[in-house]
Amino acid sequence: MELDEKFKALSTNNAPGQEVRQNLRDINSIMLGEILDGVPIDFSHGDVDAFPPTPSSDESWKEGFSRGGSQAYTEYRGKAEIRNRLAVRLGEFTGRPIEANSELIITPGTQGALFLALASTVDAGTKVAVVEPDYFANRKLVKFFGGDILPIPLNYKNSQFENSPDINRIEDAFKAGAKVLVFSTPNNPTGLVYSKNTITKIADLAVTHDVSVIVDQLYSRMLYSGEVYTHLRSCDVQPKNLITIMGPSKTESLSGFRLGVAFGTPKLIERMESLQAIVSLRAAGYNQAVLDTWFQEPLGWMENRIREHELIRDELLKTFRASNIYTASPQAGSYLFPQLPPLSVDLYTFIHLLRHQAKVIVTPGSEFDPACKDSIRLNFSQDYSAAIAAAKRIVKMVDIYRT
Amino acid sequence: MELDEKFKALSTNNAPGQEVRQNLRDINSIMLGEILDGVPIDFSHGDVDAFPPTPSSDESWKEGFSRGGSQAYTEYRGKAEIRNRLAVRLGEFTGRPIEANSELIITPGTQGALFLALASTVDAGTKVAVVEPDYFANRKLVKFFGGDILPIPLNYKNSQFENSPDINRIEDAFKAGAKVLVFSTPNNPTGLVYSKNTITKIADLAVTHDVSVIVDQLYSRMLYSGEVYTHLRSCDVQPKNLITIMGPSKTESLSGFRLGVAFGTPKLIERMESLQAIVSLRAAGYNQAVLDTWFQEPLGWMENRIREHELIRDELLKTFRASNIYTASPQAGSYLFPQLPPLSVDLYTFIHLLRHQAKVIVTPGSEFDPACKDSIRLNFSQDYSAAIAAAKRIVKMVDIYRT
Repeated sequence: MELDEKFKALSTNNAPGQEVRQNLRDINSIMLGEILDGVPIDFSHGDVDAFPPTPSSDESWKEGFSRGGSQAYTEYRGKAEIRNRLAVRLGEFTGRPIEANSELIITPGTQGALFLALASTVDAGTKVAVVEPDYFANRKLVKFFGGDILPIPLNYKNSQFENSPDINRIEDAFKAGAKVLVFSTPNNPTGLVYSKNTITKIADLAVTHDVSVIVDQLYSRMLYSGEVYTHLRSCDVQPKNLITIMGPSKTESLSGFRLGVAFGTPKLIERMESLQAIVSLRAAGYNQAVLDTWFQEPLGWMENRIREHELIRDELLKTFRASNIYTASPQAGSYLFPQLPPLSVDLYTFIHLLRHQAKVIVTPGSEFDPACKDSIRLNFSQDYSAAIAAAKRIVKMVDIYRT
Repeated sequence: MELDEKFKALSTNNAPGQEVRQNLRDINSIMLGEILDGVPIDFSHGDVDAFPPTPSSDESWKEGFSRGGSQAYTEYRGKAEIRNRLAVRLGEFTGRPIEANSELIITPGTQGALFLALASTVDAGTKVAVVEPDYFANRKLVKFFGGDILPIPLNYKNSQFENSPDINRIEDAFKAGAKVLVFSTPNNPTGLVYSKNTITKIADLAVTHDVSVIVDQLYSRMLYSGEVYTHLRSCDVQPKNLITIMGPSKTESLSGFRLGVAFGTPKLIERMESLQAIVSLRAAGYNQAVLDTWFQEPLGWMENRIREHELIRDELLKTFRASNIYTASPQAGSYLFPQLPPLSVDLYTFIHLLRHQAKVIVTPGSEFDPACKDSIRLNFSQDYSAAIAAAKRIVKMVDIYRT
């Protein structure tokens, strides 16, 4: 009975990528108007056909495969040589050196890293400050480990200088006994990048109240024109327990390899490895070889990829805003979080209709903040024309079902 | 503090493959006699250079990679087309049809399957019957989820007809409130295959006492001459909750791809998928394509692979037995579990000495049964000559340190 409850909280019915398991039986009786023609598009995740994996990633894989046993069986925390090289590059990127042997673990995707990091810090009754909206798995993981969620509202609809998680609420949560803070920056789903001021305050508060911080920086490389990114690792004041999570699944489109990394406090990395040993042993051995392409992309490749995403972002923002659909401007990453006006159907029905009538798959806002029943998340790492056309279909659908 | 305790139970210091992290500083002061020359050998896992992956597995991977997005992003439980094909072949192999949509999940290795299966059945205080000796992660997983272990002794030193887990102890454990039974057959580390009689009794008892059964059949394909394998799934009487775990990591040497499957009761498969969504999302997408080579090996390939392992097994048994080192004869799989005579050093020191002085890595018996301080586990899926030579070095080492 308790396990039933525990797993109910993990329901994946509305999770990105799981739409194929939804039952659409009665949708025709609810539908208004005609089917909207167009190329089907799945905004629930990035399209790695539109933005293919880093050049030569398959060749790196092949080299790994050719190395045989030494690449198939690595330490649970990942192959030492690969960790050594990664540690240098990630240390430079994040503004603080990483000791490869004790401070870094390779995981099966950033999801794997997040799971291990929360398992290593959250137990039954642990109070955990969780930003809302934020990546849906954060909440689910805390609940799975029996932790108590102290929600921290994220202000993302103001001017860029005012946008921030509510720092007073963070301080209140820490005073109320929170032992862990988990958040993503750039924020998933809004694309908000935490300012230097915000990051510094978070670091200071974590030190004062001895709170472990887990920061998910998955999208930190796809930073748009004029934006500045602050790594928590680069602050002068460092929390005693800090884990930074990154991976090449998004900007680099290497999601099909399931690769992520976590780096930070040795004691937590040690715990994460112990747990990885009974969860999945290691990130797939041959795939680990592909990490040698990371931060080693051909000259100009990354800049070009960012520019292409920025063009899609700008055009989508224009499309939604022209129809008065409020949409915050993402400073980084490829997520957009449009807020829909009041509709004659509830959010889930509208999303089913979008899929059935407009051939557009999106993720409900409630996956990111349980109270958010009026927003949808789009991953716009898609073919330019198909994405714009699909956004126009979303606008049409909003007009059809607007109250 | 509680987390410290929890993770202490997960220590991987003596786990297979982690030997590189051990500190060998003081070994020279303990060492007796000379260094024994020979090709270094790592019996902690199979050597995929000696027994390479299934032919064309890399080409299957490449085809998967070429398919792009549809292969990179699959349902959390794995790509439907691949599950459909697998379900047919696994249903035939295990003697009962599998409904691909609801009864099967693809996982990151069999380790991933085991983790998800135990997470779906064990919660704080759940009583779990665990066979000893058995795969070391079984105990660790139960502890991690807060379950209570009810140990079931395995008799593996008698004649083949008497070898079996203690059925009376299983019945006692079930009567005492065990809700889950987990075991491997062929048993890891002894290679014992549970007889039809044993398997039938387990199924009957599980039905009578409403116990969930998780059976790890990882090595069930590598069955030696004259042996018979019984799948619990093929029994007339079926437990209400039954999960069978298999994977191509061992006999097929596909461990570097991290692929496993679990199949059985839909409710548990559903839970396992919900959890996979927050643990690692899915088995690496491109790698899943390699499952199309499984149970589709070239004609005669599997028979030949089994024959080659049987030759190594026979020669190793002869080597150990000639020196009166008791070793049960594995009926399947590539594990050997020799029992050492009383030594002048403890088991862990002896194992460190083996590595340092004889260039042989083995896994201590205590990883499989905490009370077992006199046995070592060898994975003999190795180069024939190197394995035999290494076994002779083990025998020499036993003679040097024998009391």
